[in-house]
Amino acid sequence: MTMRFSPLVARIAGEGAAAWALHSRATQAAETDPDVIIMSVGDPDLETPQIVKDAAIRALQENDTHYTTVAGVSPLRVAVARRFSEQTGVPYGLENVMITPGTQSALFFSSMCLAGPGDEILAPEPMYVTYEATVQVTGAKLVRAPQPAENGFRPIEQAMAEAITPKTRVILITTPNNPTGVALTHAELSMIADLAREHDLWVISDEVYGRTLFGREHVSIAALPGMAERTVTVAGLSKSHAMTGWRIGWAIGPRELVAHFDNLALCMLYGLPGFTQTAAVVALADGPDGAWDAADGMRDIYQRRCRLALSALNQISGLSCVEPEGGMFAMMDVRGTGMSAAEFANGLFEAEKVSVLDATAFGPSAQGHVRLSFAIADDRLEEACARIGRFVRGRT
Amino acid sequence: MTMRFSPLVARIAGEGAAAWALHSRATQAAETDPDVIIMSVGDPDLETPQIVKDAAIRALQENDTHYTTVAGVSPLRVAVARRFSEQTGVPYGLENVMITPGTQSALFFSSMCLAGPGDEILAPEPMYVTYEATVQVTGAKLVRAPQPAENGFRPIEQAMAEAITPKTRVILITTPNNPTGVALTHAELSMIADLAREHDLWVISDEVYGRTLFGREHVSIAALPGMAERTVTVAGLSKSHAMTGWRIGWAIGPRELVAHFDNLALCMLYGLPGFTQTAAVVALADGPDGAWDAADGMRDIYQRRCRLALSALNQISGLSCVEPEGGMFAMMDVRGTGMSAAEFANGLFEAEKVSVLDATAFGPSAQGHVRLSFAIADDRLEEACARIGRFVRGRT
Repeated sequence: MTMRFSPLVARIAGEGAAAWALHSRATQAAETDPDVIIMSVGDPDLETPQIVKDAAIRALQENDTHYTTVAGVSPLRVAVARRFSEQTGVPYGLENVMITPGTQSALFFSSMCLAGPGDEILAPEPMYVTYEATVQVTGAKLVRAPQPAENGFRPIEQAMAEAITPKTRVILITTPNNPTGVALTHAELSMIADLAREHDLWVISDEVYGRTLFGREHVSIAALPGMAERTVTVAGLSKSHAMTGWRIGWAIGPRELVAHFDNLALCMLYGLPGFTQTAAVVALADGPDGAWDAADGMRDIYQRRCRLALSALNQISGLSCVEPEGGMFAMMDVRGTGMSAAEFANGLFEAEKVSVLDATAFGPSAQGHVRLSFAIADDRLEEACARIGRFVRGRT
Repeated sequence: MTMRFSPLVARIAGEGAAAWALHSRATQAAETDPDVIIMSVGDPDLETPQIVKDAAIRALQENDTHYTTVAGVSPLRVAVARRFSEQTGVPYGLENVMITPGTQSALFFSSMCLAGPGDEILAPEPMYVTYEATVQVTGAKLVRAPQPAENGFRPIEQAMAEAITPKTRVILITTPNNPTGVALTHAELSMIADLAREHDLWVISDEVYGRTLFGREHVSIAALPGMAERTVTVAGLSKSHAMTGWRIGWAIGPRELVAHFDNLALCMLYGLPGFTQTAAVVALADGPDGAWDAADGMRDIYQRRCRLALSALNQISGLSCVEPEGGMFAMMDVRGTGMSAAEFANGLFEAEKVSVLDATAFGPSAQGHVRLSFAIADDRLEEACARIGRFVRGRT
């Protein structure tokens, strides 16, 4: 037969998908070789808080294994709304919250319901690798505004303003940013909010690392005047509570938009497991019966490791790291080694079994950089830094 | 602000979404009123086999809570491939299987990667209510071929052939059918396979009720000559193992198509929980450490209840049921009562707190019918039949 697929398949097969090639090779190698060190992904080595796992186990024992409300169980939607209201001062309720299988899925929902063929979504780069496919899946075009390494990967008003056209429907931002670790300031968010209001645009704000800031306060653009009505905030428990595999995230926005999300979920998912949602409620709860504060402890660990890695790596001649303000990644400039980022990443894995990600996939501004994760144990991190030093010395 | 959404939102807000209105009202009422009997959904009252729950609990305790392979963990993909190879005689492998959060999601994946704007997907009706949105989400058009009540809701070659146009890309079938309970025969499937080969079409075959047949053998269209290369078979554990809330399903098809599914999953889901997949492997395993045979026990229960309900309902003057060949639903013709299906469903809920679904949402051929589920306990089923009788006698 002629194997004809939909035009969509070409739109989702971009560089984003290709970026994972080395990482996939590394995880496969790691299955049989304990010497492989994986710094190419943001999956915490920390474990989900016991109290959260216990809640899921109890729910399973109690047969909470039937269909649930498609938009998410009420206690979880209420808990998410309450937490986000506390943070932003905006009165969010259950109808403003859609529970999704992870933050990635919340981005997918947002894209699908806000943009289509002929539209443009503007996003500053470097940006997370799946954004391209997540935008293009809708038929819309992803337009990139540069945040050059020379500017510390921070947004530039002129670059963003110039990238807005009559076709622009959405500005997609990330704070703290993956891969750069940049947390947007109140002033930067105000600049972006002004652009959104002036051009009557939606903002999708990816804040999955919002609880992993190093000595700074997280600011949500939804908290800025007149922004809640045009902002969808996506986040989840993967990073804050070491719950990547649970697939619990959410999109918070105007209730009219959430009603559309609900329709999309009817044909795309038909709800999430009740027992994972019950566990998520515990992750968001205060006090001894909740795990809300666990995120602070995890953040402290990432911050300590970040310092550990940066002090080791910045001593290596030819390398320099941009100090992250949050998250679990650092961008390392490898141009001083004479290698391209791809040569560095591939060479390092071949020679030293350490996998990092060629950051070029995150956008042209990231050229000459690799992204590394500190979501690995201290001793592995130290060992990885030592191997990186040995690799660079051998090549320069 | 002007709240502009994507054109997609109109395409997913059809009757399918509206069909759930009475059901939602009923489930809400049931939260506080134990007297409400819900026959409007296919969520088994049976519980997930203990051995399956235990596997998930063990995986949680062992911290299988991190990211998993996006297309599904290998042991589960292998188990699904093996089971489907056994059934069809087609040599399927891991690369032919995509694990999805439920069969509904597998349908979404299939639609998205096989059809787009300007294309048509042909499906015989009555059909499951979410199919319309699942097809239209891609921009393609759903074309319905009638399976009239007078023909026992069975497919008609001429009606299907006439509905095929140069724009047709896919034939979407369901066996056993929800809502009609019709299981397609080898001859009917051959007829459909001939049409697919002649017009070079894909077939999406929804077989989520494939293990719930009453005294018949399930036939997959993928087993027919030359069909594996053009068929995507979707199914899952929701119905066979009373695992609706677990959200474990799959799409089985050519490996090129599964590679596209993988790309779509990267931006839509980024994998499923490991602990639910580990449990699913146990559900598919033979012998004392598996729950493969549990599906047969559950089927026997549905079959017994089906007989129980039909013998009670067919004694009520003005009602007649089409005998289901499988699944957990029956179509009941209410035209003899003088009420429309909507009047019947609403009136029954108001008067007797029993919720059934107006089957009109499943397609024009279902006019004058309501769909009822036997996924409820025997005593509740008997009580519901008694109430239905009282309701009809009061109205006629």
